[in-house]
Amino acid sequence: MSAADEVVEVKARKILVAVDEGEESMYALSWAVNNLLVSSNNTTTKDTLILLYVKIPRVVYTTLDGTGYLFSADILSSMEKYSNDVAQCVMEKSRRLCKDLQDVKVETKIENGDPRDAICEVAEKLGVDVLVMGTHGYGMIKRAFLGSVSSHCAYKVKCPVLIVKRPKSSSATRE
Amino acid sequence: MSAADEVVEVKARKILVAVDEGEESMYALSWAVNNLLVSSNNTTTKDTLILLYVKIPRVVYTTLDGTGYLFSADILSSMEKYSNDVAQCVMEKSRRLCKDLQDVKVETKIENGDPRDAICEVAEKLGVDVLVMGTHGYGMIKRAFLGSVSSHCAYKVKCPVLIVKRPKSSSATRE
Repeated sequence: MSAADEVVEVKARKILVAVDEGEESMYALSWAVNNLLVSSNNTTTKDTLILLYVKIPRVVYTTLDGTGYLFSADILSSMEKYSNDVAQCVMEKSRRLCKDLQDVKVETKIENGDPRDAICEVAEKLGVDVLVMGTHGYGMIKRAFLGSVSSHCAYKVKCPVLIVKRPKSSSATRE
Repeated sequence: MSAADEVVEVKARKILVAVDEGEESMYALSWAVNNLLVSSNNTTTKDTLILLYVKIPRVVYTTLDGTGYLFSADILSSMEKYSNDVAQCVMEKSRRLCKDLQDVKVETKIENGDPRDAICEVAEKLGVDVLVMGTHGYGMIKRAFLGSVSSHCAYKVKCPVLIVKRPKSSSATRE
């Protein structure tokens, strides 16, 4: 069967957007909302939009610390709380960007682990139709340790991957 | 200005799809047509769809030949004709996939050069809103020489890049 004979049906889709604390992922989400979820006549689709945030587990931070000292239970507990607060904050910000999508079912999902693996696993497990992400996920420092999350996912997942970069004009103040 | 304050307007877009003789790029085009250009109520957008085919210049073939012999003018002329025929064939096949897009302006563009550079240059020059491409562009052999076209472009171009992989079920007979 040739590709030209294949019929790609238009149906309700599952769109996975990987969000994080970086502004680039918020831009990627905005782009997806406006280009995949809102049609030209301003009606929205009946798709499911899944917002995924991956919390990097504590062990990564303790390794990054590099001193070999163990953190006290108090510090670990504060770090855990901080990490949860960040996740909630990112999800709230993300949801605000989706507030006009009346017919779209918006779901949120918070996972723990290496974002590269967690994003790919969620994409496969949920059988999503497209994965959307920014390029500079997880900040400058974390990126150096984790490698490029988006290029890893683009290589690994089976579904279409949309990589959205933030235009230079609006990121001029960042770098 | 934070990303959340940015307004991504819905307007007529320029969508660039890099097509080649591989079935994966035809699948990528189908996916783009159905997911970016046809809305849920089957109306199409007023976007411009640019189909780009890049002819790899003759010098690459003579290098691949590896014998060091020069081709005769006859053979070079046949190769040029063959290359043009392939380009036309790919464009016709691509146009057929777009036949139901009544309101979309479909343009075709044939360039010469290294696809990695040519695709990025066209994307920048035309100021496209999104670049769509398959992953296995330019076949198994050419890919080994040229490297992954899609990952190069995803890294280099400034606009969002949509990388569409062909589902395994429909490519089982190929590899």
